[in-house]
Amino acid sequence: MVTSTILPDLATEIIIPVCALIGIVFSIVQWSIVSKVKLSLDKPDAKNAFTESLIEEEEGINDHNVVQKCAEIQNAISEGATSFLFTEYQYVGIFMIAFAVLIFVFLGSVKGFSTSFQQCTYDATKMCKPALFTAVFSTVSFILGAITSVISGFLGMKIATYANARTTLEARKGVGKAFSIAFRSGAVMGFLLAANGLLVLFITINVFKIYYGDDWEGLFEAITGYGLGGSSMALFGRVGGGIYTKAADVGADLVGKVERNIPEDDPRNPAVIADNVGDNVGDIAGMGSDLFGSYAESSCAALVVASISSFGNNHDFTSMMYPLLISSVGILVCLLTTLFATDFFEVKTVKEIEPALKNQLIISTALMTVGIALVSWIALPYSFTIFNFGVQKEVKNWQLFLCVGVGLWAGLIIGFITEYYTSNAYSPVQDVADSCRTGAATNVIFGLALGYKSVIIPIFAIAISIFVSFSFAAMYGIAVAALGMLSTIATGLAIDAYGPISDNAGGIAEMAGMSHRIRERTDALDAAGNTTAAIGKGFAIGSAALVSLALFGAFVSRAEITTVDVLTPKVFIGLIVGAMLPYWFSAMTMKSVGKAALKMVEEVRRQFNTIPGLMEGTAKPDYATCVKISTDASIKEMIPPGALVMLTPLIVGIFFGVETLSGVLAGSLVSGVQIAISASNTGGAWDNAKKYIEAGASEHARTLGPKGSDPHKAAVIGDTVGDPLKDTSGPSLNILIKLMAVESLVFAPFFATHGGLLFKIF
Amino acid sequence: MVTSTILPDLATEIIIPVCALIGIVFSIVQWSIVSKVKLSLDKPDAKNAFTESLIEEEEGINDHNVVQKCAEIQNAISEGATSFLFTEYQYVGIFMIAFAVLIFVFLGSVKGFSTSFQQCTYDATKMCKPALFTAVFSTVSFILGAITSVISGFLGMKIATYANARTTLEARKGVGKAFSIAFRSGAVMGFLLAANGLLVLFITINVFKIYYGDDWEGLFEAITGYGLGGSSMALFGRVGGGIYTKAADVGADLVGKVERNIPEDDPRNPAVIADNVGDNVGDIAGMGSDLFGSYAESSCAALVVASISSFGNNHDFTSMMYPLLISSVGILVCLLTTLFATDFFEVKTVKEIEPALKNQLIISTALMTVGIALVSWIALPYSFTIFNFGVQKEVKNWQLFLCVGVGLWAGLIIGFITEYYTSNAYSPVQDVADSCRTGAATNVIFGLALGYKSVIIPIFAIAISIFVSFSFAAMYGIAVAALGMLSTIATGLAIDAYGPISDNAGGIAEMAGMSHRIRERTDALDAAGNTTAAIGKGFAIGSAALVSLALFGAFVSRAEITTVDVLTPKVFIGLIVGAMLPYWFSAMTMKSVGKAALKMVEEVRRQFNTIPGLMEGTAKPDYATCVKISTDASIKEMIPPGALVMLTPLIVGIFFGVETLSGVLAGSLVSGVQIAISASNTGGAWDNAKKYIEAGASEHARTLGPKGSDPHKAAVIGDTVGDPLKDTSGPSLNILIKLMAVESLVFAPFFATHGGLLFKIF
Repeated sequence: MVTSTILPDLATEIIIPVCALIGIVFSIVQWSIVSKVKLSLDKPDAKNAFTESLIEEEEGINDHNVVQKCAEIQNAISEGATSFLFTEYQYVGIFMIAFAVLIFVFLGSVKGFSTSFQQCTYDATKMCKPALFTAVFSTVSFILGAITSVISGFLGMKIATYANARTTLEARKGVGKAFSIAFRSGAVMGFLLAANGLLVLFITINVFKIYYGDDWEGLFEAITGYGLGGSSMALFGRVGGGIYTKAADVGADLVGKVERNIPEDDPRNPAVIADNVGDNVGDIAGMGSDLFGSYAESSCAALVVASISSFGNNHDFTSMMYPLLISSVGILVCLLTTLFATDFFEVKTVKEIEPALKNQLIISTALMTVGIALVSWIALPYSFTIFNFGVQKEVKNWQLFLCVGVGLWAGLIIGFITEYYTSNAYSPVQDVADSCRTGAATNVIFGLALGYKSVIIPIFAIAISIFVSFSFAAMYGIAVAALGMLSTIATGLAIDAYGPISDNAGGIAEMAGMSHRIRERTDALDAAGNTTAAIGKGFAIGSAALVSLALFGAFVSRAEITTVDVLTPKVFIGLIVGAMLPYWFSAMTMKSVGKAALKMVEEVRRQFNTIPGLMEGTAKPDYATCVKISTDASIKEMIPPGALVMLTPLIVGIFFGVETLSGVLAGSLVSGVQIAISASNTGGAWDNAKKYIEAGASEHARTLGPKGSDPHKAAVIGDTVGDPLKDTSGPSLNILIKLMAVESLVFAPFFATHGGLLFKIF
Repeated sequence: MVTSTILPDLATEIIIPVCALIGIVFSIVQWSIVSKVKLSLDKPDAKNAFTESLIEEEEGINDHNVVQKCAEIQNAISEGATSFLFTEYQYVGIFMIAFAVLIFVFLGSVKGFSTSFQQCTYDATKMCKPALFTAVFSTVSFILGAITSVISGFLGMKIATYANARTTLEARKGVGKAFSIAFRSGAVMGFLLAANGLLVLFITINVFKIYYGDDWEGLFEAITGYGLGGSSMALFGRVGGGIYTKAADVGADLVGKVERNIPEDDPRNPAVIADNVGDNVGDIAGMGSDLFGSYAESSCAALVVASISSFGNNHDFTSMMYPLLISSVGILVCLLTTLFATDFFEVKTVKEIEPALKNQLIISTALMTVGIALVSWIALPYSFTIFNFGVQKEVKNWQLFLCVGVGLWAGLIIGFITEYYTSNAYSPVQDVADSCRTGAATNVIFGLALGYKSVIIPIFAIAISIFVSFSFAAMYGIAVAALGMLSTIATGLAIDAYGPISDNAGGIAEMAGMSHRIRERTDALDAAGNTTAAIGKGFAIGSAALVSLALFGAFVSRAEITTVDVLTPKVFIGLIVGAMLPYWFSAMTMKSVGKAALKMVEEVRRQFNTIPGLMEGTAKPDYATCVKISTDASIKEMIPPGALVMLTPLIVGIFFGVETLSGVLAGSLVSGVQIAISASNTGGAWDNAKKYIEAGASEHARTLGPKGSDPHKAAVIGDTVGDPLKDTSGPSLNILIKLMAVESLVFAPFFATHGGLLFKIF
């Protein structure tokens, strides 16, 4: 039945690292282009980009004072972000070490730390490596995943803080130039992360193979630790970063914009540096870790299912590497796509920004469809079998192509629906803006209703993807559908990172006292960025839903249960409690943001009241104290929600066993995905409703404005409520559902052996 | 194995109707006490309550002008409510007739409208009545359920509008007197509804038995229509009433309180009558229909499972009637409990109100525990079997006692947790009030977080009830646990109806221009009522969760599927789409309230701007137009959410089949219950945070007030946002989850035979 693949194994061994290296080289090239915008003043270079490029609307180019100021501000932001991430990583590092020990002890105990070989679980005719060694390798891959995630987030932050002031400076030459710099910087991050994740995973597999040899079951079991490591770091990154950024943002807005009536990012506001640091540690580093986690997990889920399918049983390396080949082709496709935004076409006016970003999504999806077809044709046998809860199910290569494809296109649909509900070019956000006429209360009611409504089509898209891929190729189908959605991750991250970079660029322009025109240009970049950020979150959530279902399936397979019957009390209580967890988690994170914001408000008020000359601009505020408040709050407040997510699978698995844990995973998945989507979109819509009123671009918008009008004040309240929803609790929920699933998967053998203590006792 | 019961069948036939009649007589007695407070002036009676009772702090007793005014206002409210309910019932009536036809056609088609006898489904040795006749009887019981629900809601409204002005008048004599009248009026409604529901169900069973004879399978299959009828009416009552009341409330507050700075319920506000009408059609009629629906459904679920268990197989009538006996004893227990509030003890001061209401819950639960034990002992054989998805499971009578008991006590826990999170005597609401210092945005963030957090313990309470009752007696256990929670329904409804009656009494006092002292007394009654309303909603949601799970189990049994495996694509897509439905539904209802409120705001503003002398109180506003806006909006807007709930099971069942429908039911249950609890509690907390600031009863509260301060304004915004959450979308969700389950149960044979078209085609 199993036929061989067109692509030989040796070619696979070469193609994957080569694609990863191409991605890295491309990102270095983009970086070198960005770095041509000079921030330092000591070596004036006649050949640099300033003079070379076609300057249409040059303004203040030679004002060295401005460059100096931008450099200073950038330094402050970069230092703040670096110091926060270091503090965060220290705390998380301790946790990681403890958790690594736990993994080793728990997994080692499955066979009583025996070093003797054992019968394989899925192929009783073979002998597999000792569980103790799999425990060791799982621990190692957990640490590798965690470190890769840290590097991803950190590099992303470094690139973003390197790019933001450069974007501001380029904005002097026109909106097109600034867009190009911001987008290229996003691409640096996107490609570096995608390539890095792929390369580390590929190398780890090859190194582990030296020990495991033919025991692929054990090999890919150990590899799942990589996903867990990546995701646990992402959790703390998202939650910590999310609390940081929103405490600063809410605090800065409440006193600055609402009470003192000074513009956003005004340098007189003591929380302004903390706010800009927050964008980099929350939206950039957090998002980077999150999507890297999704990528790592979906790869691990696909690999672990494949290892007990015909690919693994027949040691068919190329087919086994199908998930990694998809990602490799994804890098090439995204590379080509990026050129459409930066080289093949040029953005010249404000109007062209949003279409350029949207085209990125369409082009990458269209090209990738061809890429998937190619990979499915050359890297898969025509027919093969996939493990499906105890039985092997026959699958054709074109069916697997459809699985990946349906995930890819579902991602695009989710992206566009998210855009429809969060961009102020369409009626939903305009309706929300209109409801500000009657005050903040109706604005909040309409915004919440919009978020709830925006869930409908994405859920149908996810449901259809699940149905198609599940029907064709069981849990492997779901895992590759998730990979399909993430195959254009480099492009997704690029347009996603573009948002906070533009946001920061605007902040720097305001702080450096640059002209109103410059600020208008960066605002235009930022408005488009708001929508792309929402789209990015849509992708993150959609892929998280698929990934977590795939991991759930892999967990069930490894825990050796064949049905998860809702109509058993053990499963049902898990289901209803699982559905409650996202609420518990959101309550914690939202309250944390609220508490930290209150502290920030008090500090900012104190500074305005006690520092003479601050409002007049003659005295400088004490930025450092605000940075410290955000740092301390986020470090302290990220622990309880983190513990909730990390401990729940352990407690449920140990005391209630794998059936209840299955219920918990299913419940938190189906409930969490809804809250995550609605929270992100509600927040995005409020933000853009406010921007709609501020921009006053239409007749309707002008009847609501200008800034400072009652409807505008109502819109600011909505925007502030939306901040923790869209940037803290909403996106963290992705990680909640993925992480609980991957953790359950890693500990599955332990739970299956030693779990369910309560039911064993009674 | 099956032993006979202590209670003979004849005694059962007598006890149930006698208890129901006692309930009705008791409610008439209470009503006659309430009616002693005279509203009419034409027959001054020397012996009436005015002069007889001990009057401590009499005020304006002889001011006939005030009585006249109160009577007028009450009339206006009563007329508005009656006319709305009639309009609503007309529309819903058409729908009901159409749906009745659908039930007949669909169920009749199961066996092709054949009139020949058929093999029984669960006992193949016997012959059962033709499916066509069961279709007829199902249709009849559907109509009976709908009519009973209509009568319940209508009577409740009539009683409430009869009582509100009387409460106002009694408030002149002191807070204790007013409390007594308001509470007695609530009791009239509670006992009438509980007794009425029980009696109609009992009579229907006995009448149907004449035709069905020994075919109990068919008999109780047909009886399930009663639950469907009750619940469908409740849906429209809740949604329509909810939109009505909140459109008026939000509209009145936004212009009156926020823009014009006039007090709540000021007679100058054109929307004030509509607002008071809304309390009666939404909170009273809607809640009455809702809890009647829960009661009818849990009884039906228990009966249908029992009919295919040993009770039904052995035609053990007393055991079969166990659910009805529980309800009968419940009426007696609640009767005794009521006396504690009205006769054994007397409420004299404001401080005693909340404890008196809370004691009602504790006393009724404690007494009922004894009642359940008694019924379980005399009405059940020591050992019997319960149908459990294809197999019979042995159950002992003490186990069933525990099932009912765990439901009863879980209800109490949910009640107290709800109180903790919504009463301003505790820190959660005080924290929310405190967050108003920094404005409306933090208030909204803290309020949402509070709602999310308040879900945790109720879900654990529900989960434990489910686990215990499920483990002991499968789906029958769940159904009787739900009945246990609802066994004290008469008391629950009494304290629940007490809230809106007090609220209205305050409104009438304000409108009649009564003194500040009177208004303070009614405000004190109302503040306690706010918390009891939240507790009532907690009960409604908790019982809805259990009821809907029991119905779900009954559906699965009747659809002849034995497992609902999450790990099949058909079920999983149902699960995730089902979890989305509460969001879709909430989006619709919240948007409806928002839209209707905007219209109301425009009308109220128009009247203030165009009617000269309105603000000065020299001209009367045009109340009727506001009543019409609310009526039209709610009639129009209740159709789409109603259609969503009623059509989803039909569409899913017909096109996707029973497995997917099972997923949808489980998903909407586990997701809906969370949103319902959090929405109700968030809204209740905001309302009481506002009241906390207004009352200024503590040092802390006074730093936030007084009325009109910035924190108070922020609190009003929170309160307004909470209105649709706690009174429209939140409580309607109970019905969504119950109704979809009972509808699936009624149509189960049809879906099992003709459903799943899409999968049959592909």
